Amino acid sequence: MGFFLTIEGVEGAGKTTAKAVVLRWLQECGHEFIATREPGGTPLAEQLRALVLGEHEEQVSDTTELLLMFAARSQNLSERIEPSLAAGKVVVCDRFTDATYAYQSGGRGIDEQRIAVLEQLVQGDRRPDMTLLLDVAPEVGLARARGRATAEGGELDRIEQEAIEFFHRVRSVYLQRAARFADQYVVIDASQSVANVEQQIVGALQARLG
Amino acid sequence: MGFFLTIEGVEGAGKTTAKAVVLRWLQECGHEFIATREPGGTPLAEQLRALVLGEHEEQVSDTTELLLMFAARSQNLSERIEPSLAAGKVVVCDRFTDATYAYQSGGRGIDEQRIAVLEQLVQGDRRPDMTLLLDVAPEVGLARARGRATAEGGELDRIEQEAIEFFHRVRSVYLQRAARFADQYVVIDASQSVANVEQQIVGALQARLG
Repeated sequence: MGFFLTIEGVEGAGKTTAKAVVLRWLQECGHEFIATREPGGTPLAEQLRALVLGEHEEQVSDTTELLLMFAARSQNLSERIEPSLAAGKVVVCDRFTDATYAYQSGGRGIDEQRIAVLEQLVQGDRRPDMTLLLDVAPEVGLARARGRATAEGGELDRIEQEAIEFFHRVRSVYLQRAARFADQYVVIDASQSVANVEQQIVGALQARLG
Repeated sequence: MGFFLTIEGVEGAGKTTAKAVVLRWLQECGHEFIATREPGGTPLAEQLRALVLGEHEEQVSDTTELLLMFAARSQNLSERIEPSLAAGKVVVCDRFTDATYAYQSGGRGIDEQRIAVLEQLVQGDRRPDMTLLLDVAPEVGLARARGRATAEGGELDRIEQEAIEFFHRVRSVYLQRAARFADQYVVIDASQSVANVEQQIVGALQARLG
């Protein structure tokens, strides 16, 4: 019943474009679907998103952040994702728990067992049926995200260098998970042209939902 | 290092009075202390308190509520409770995880293992050094909380009856935990006169901190 599709990738990998391609394809094929994003997706979950992403005078601990991410996820699951799947719809979600592993564990170094405990508590056996991973070198993604072409040649300052190392760790966890959960993941080479990326995405959709 | 004291009990048991007695005694004895409450205690945790206790158009799931309670707790621990304990202070907290067991598991029927998983994730080995449980029959507590003396004789309507059954389950979990964690809990008979309750509290404080 239903089909749970998530879209993942580092900054600048092209998730927004990929999501538009997926939604257009679903519409053309006559699939019923909803689109949502994480953290967010319900009024309360969007309030939690604002708290997680916002600035605070106090230091927000890693554990607090993790619990708020999963609180938003819990709410999006119970209010939108699970009812839509039960109704036989395709659910397209911009980021999900794979992003928590990639960013919080890979990027920030939180023990992945802490994430696994919350994943089990909040999701039970629920996992994405398909994850489109838009994969690109962080240098390319960041340059795209910044809208400038410093990727080749230009030297990185200290902050940019830290950002690059952070995103290398994020990408590395994504790729490890893609290898481990090969039935779930479809890795899209997002360094290629938009037309080529679109072709890869449509091919993956046709193979599973066509 | 430090001393972590929590105050628990059903509505109308006299937690507010008990807290005032504790704080006055600590002041008179020259102990350094802070007072806090749950959920809350930091600006972010108080925002989470408002979300947990507030009204929402959507149905807030039990799991979401549990995660928000522990997110607030995580923040209060890292920002206020742990630093104060590390500085050798007495921390007086109005409700803590024992209340989560009593209300969410006892009252609402959430599997206590779900709470235990979050307790371990958020607190590690941190547990209260002493819990003052203000114990009173729910009929007496609710009558006090409502500021009227319907406890004896007057019949309860359906809603009040449900409330009474809910609070019986809450009380029952508190008392089970008091028996199981006998070193941590001091059960105060809160059905007695204010003077007598105060005497029991001061006796317990002198035995542990005198």
